[in-house]
Amino acid sequence: MKPIDWQVTASDGQARTGILRTRRSIIETPVFMPVGTQAAVKGVRFESLEDELDARIILGNTYHLFLRPGPEIIRGLGGLHKFSTWNRSLLTDSGGFQVFSLTDLRRLSEDGVEFRSHIDGSRKYLSPEISMEVQAALGSEIVMAFDECPPGDAGHERTRTSLELTARWAARSKEKFIEFQDGGMDVGFVSEPGAVATGDFSPRAESEPSVATAPVATAHGSDSLSGRQALFGIIQGAGHLDLRAESLQRTVDIGFDGYAIGGLSVGEEKPVMYGVIEYIAPQMPADAPRYLMGVGTPEDLIEAVYRGVDMFDCVMPTRNGRTGGAFTSHGKLNIRNARFATDQSPLDSDCGCSVCRRYSRAYLRHLNLAGEMTAATLITHHNLAFYLDTMRRARQAIKSGDFARFRVEFLNKLRQNGDAGV
Amino acid sequence: MKPIDWQVTASDGQARTGILRTRRSIIETPVFMPVGTQAAVKGVRFESLEDELDARIILGNTYHLFLRPGPEIIRGLGGLHKFSTWNRSLLTDSGGFQVFSLTDLRRLSEDGVEFRSHIDGSRKYLSPEISMEVQAALGSEIVMAFDECPPGDAGHERTRTSLELTARWAARSKEKFIEFQDGGMDVGFVSEPGAVATGDFSPRAESEPSVATAPVATAHGSDSLSGRQALFGIIQGAGHLDLRAESLQRTVDIGFDGYAIGGLSVGEEKPVMYGVIEYIAPQMPADAPRYLMGVGTPEDLIEAVYRGVDMFDCVMPTRNGRTGGAFTSHGKLNIRNARFATDQSPLDSDCGCSVCRRYSRAYLRHLNLAGEMTAATLITHHNLAFYLDTMRRARQAIKSGDFARFRVEFLNKLRQNGDAGV
Repeated sequence: MKPIDWQVTASDGQARTGILRTRRSIIETPVFMPVGTQAAVKGVRFESLEDELDARIILGNTYHLFLRPGPEIIRGLGGLHKFSTWNRSLLTDSGGFQVFSLTDLRRLSEDGVEFRSHIDGSRKYLSPEISMEVQAALGSEIVMAFDECPPGDAGHERTRTSLELTARWAARSKEKFIEFQDGGMDVGFVSEPGAVATGDFSPRAESEPSVATAPVATAHGSDSLSGRQALFGIIQGAGHLDLRAESLQRTVDIGFDGYAIGGLSVGEEKPVMYGVIEYIAPQMPADAPRYLMGVGTPEDLIEAVYRGVDMFDCVMPTRNGRTGGAFTSHGKLNIRNARFATDQSPLDSDCGCSVCRRYSRAYLRHLNLAGEMTAATLITHHNLAFYLDTMRRARQAIKSGDFARFRVEFLNKLRQNGDAGV
Repeated sequence: MKPIDWQVTASDGQARTGILRTRRSIIETPVFMPVGTQAAVKGVRFESLEDELDARIILGNTYHLFLRPGPEIIRGLGGLHKFSTWNRSLLTDSGGFQVFSLTDLRRLSEDGVEFRSHIDGSRKYLSPEISMEVQAALGSEIVMAFDECPPGDAGHERTRTSLELTARWAARSKEKFIEFQDGGMDVGFVSEPGAVATGDFSPRAESEPSVATAPVATAHGSDSLSGRQALFGIIQGAGHLDLRAESLQRTVDIGFDGYAIGGLSVGEEKPVMYGVIEYIAPQMPADAPRYLMGVGTPEDLIEAVYRGVDMFDCVMPTRNGRTGGAFTSHGKLNIRNARFATDQSPLDSDCGCSVCRRYSRAYLRHLNLAGEMTAATLITHHNLAFYLDTMRRARQAIKSGDFARFRVEFLNKLRQNGDAGV
């Protein structure tokens, strides 16, 4: 029995739709996963994510939860699902990216990395083994292997050294991961997958978003799931295509339940990013989900779906939303702009979310300028609605064999405001 | 035809319940009005205030909206209801209290008060006439007369001088108010009260909170409303009972649709506040709503209801909620306290709000310590639920003739944590 199951349901060029079953929910891909860094998606209640936005999977950040409240507290309270009350799927990253981007005074060794907490400066240590232990305590559905993330502009030699370390860490991650699974350390273990949160476990039909369909086993094959965590490997290699291919080969040789492209959107030019995706995604195992980590703008998502990617996460919709940045089908806008002072139209006239159905740009601008946190919560809500709806529309276009046209029209419309994707 | 209608439905000692009809909603009293200073109740979406919390009336602050976005913008966008999308009742204060508490470099004259904006230091001016003009542009259901607020510890002579000025300002407020009403300056005018937002306009039965009842005219008398704004007068006099009586007499002589007790909860001792309320409330017109401005803790509310007050507003549930302070039926708690680190119980085990039904103290504490704004929004939501539910229970107790017992039990329970009402 497998921890997750992923089946292609349609394809159009390199783009494909699929159904990802985890022990806690059914996820249609391509999917955008809202980021819940510290056991909460910033500014949005879980109720909204479940009821209106219908997010099936969100992220948790191992680095942040490792530091606060700490794995002992979360394990003691029954894991991240029980602690936070989010009962759909969780993907946890390995902590590697944050260690290399948020902390200083790092000491990297073959074994792992010592660093200072960005919260209180205390000395902390992460390694493949510790990351697996923390992620077992969190009890997420999808665990990420612990990797090193070199700078985006790292040279060939530095990148090769790094990916070789990442490959060794990937093997250690898998070994320890299996040990913890066999040893019952996974707090999120589900003895009867499919019996958990039945409503959440059933996908809504794309055409009828409010209707839950038949049970999983009937609708999407009868393969039982093991109830365990899944482990994804990460492909590094920066902008060097030969190293990307090498990293992919090493990662596939170890063998994972899914594969991620790491180390993109870290400062490189867009053509470099798209070039790496275009080169590597089609070489990744066709029967496993492909996850592009930490990317990106709505434009990036569509361009990556076009090149064969299935899963995404990014802080942009939540982070930008907090400061007044709205993503719309006509491009980005900053609500603080004076031209919105008496603008009675919604953030996005093509959006049907509860924020766009009710609130005007003039009102949202006022809230932002007045320092009302409701400006942040409302714009964040819309941004997530736009991201999730964009994925929904992409899936429909792929199923209709119409994705190439959808892509061009979507990107053209985004550019109408002149600052799309910037 | 009157702008509002208020009828007593039950009384128990000095405490009474009533139905207040405005042109936009029906409000059962005693009522707590959440404070929406800048056209938003901090941290809570209107959807929650309407659907779950069922608030029928909220406050707007004339001072803040006068400065930002300014009455011209709001008038241009059709008034505060249309601007904010809050379509139930609004009460706007006069701006006087904020001028005297938030600004410095004030210059008070017989005509009005010059002050510096707390936002940008620019020179501004408010007077009874300007306050009425701004409140007409806001289009609130209940307008407050412009008053001077002396310090809580002002001596007899200073207080008398102040209340005489307040009385002259009250007369000027009323004169200008009538002129604006007759001149069609009230942006919120409703030509057919009762036809507006029918669902909102009907009270829910106390016993069946989710069921809307029959139309207003049938259920609560057939008096038509004028569709205009109502004007409330304010009784000042600090802790001097003779001056309170004098201020009341002067205010009633001018004649208003409702009467407010101002200048309490501004630093005086609790017995002084309760003493003033106990002395003055029963002398206030029995057939008009009595509004205690800016008060207070749950204990204060019950003590004031016991002494005959019908309406309240206070920033405490929203302000304290933002910093982790929760009001519960067992007293206040601060979620940052280490004893909640692994506490899986809800904020208030006797509360049925959506926050208490789902989230644990341990999780809320984590969110607060992690700086997640969701800590603020969730605790604020609970606090408002507790305040509104407390009023609901007080109304039931009055209707059952059981308010004296309810009061004692409620207050005893509050004190169980040792810091109730502090």
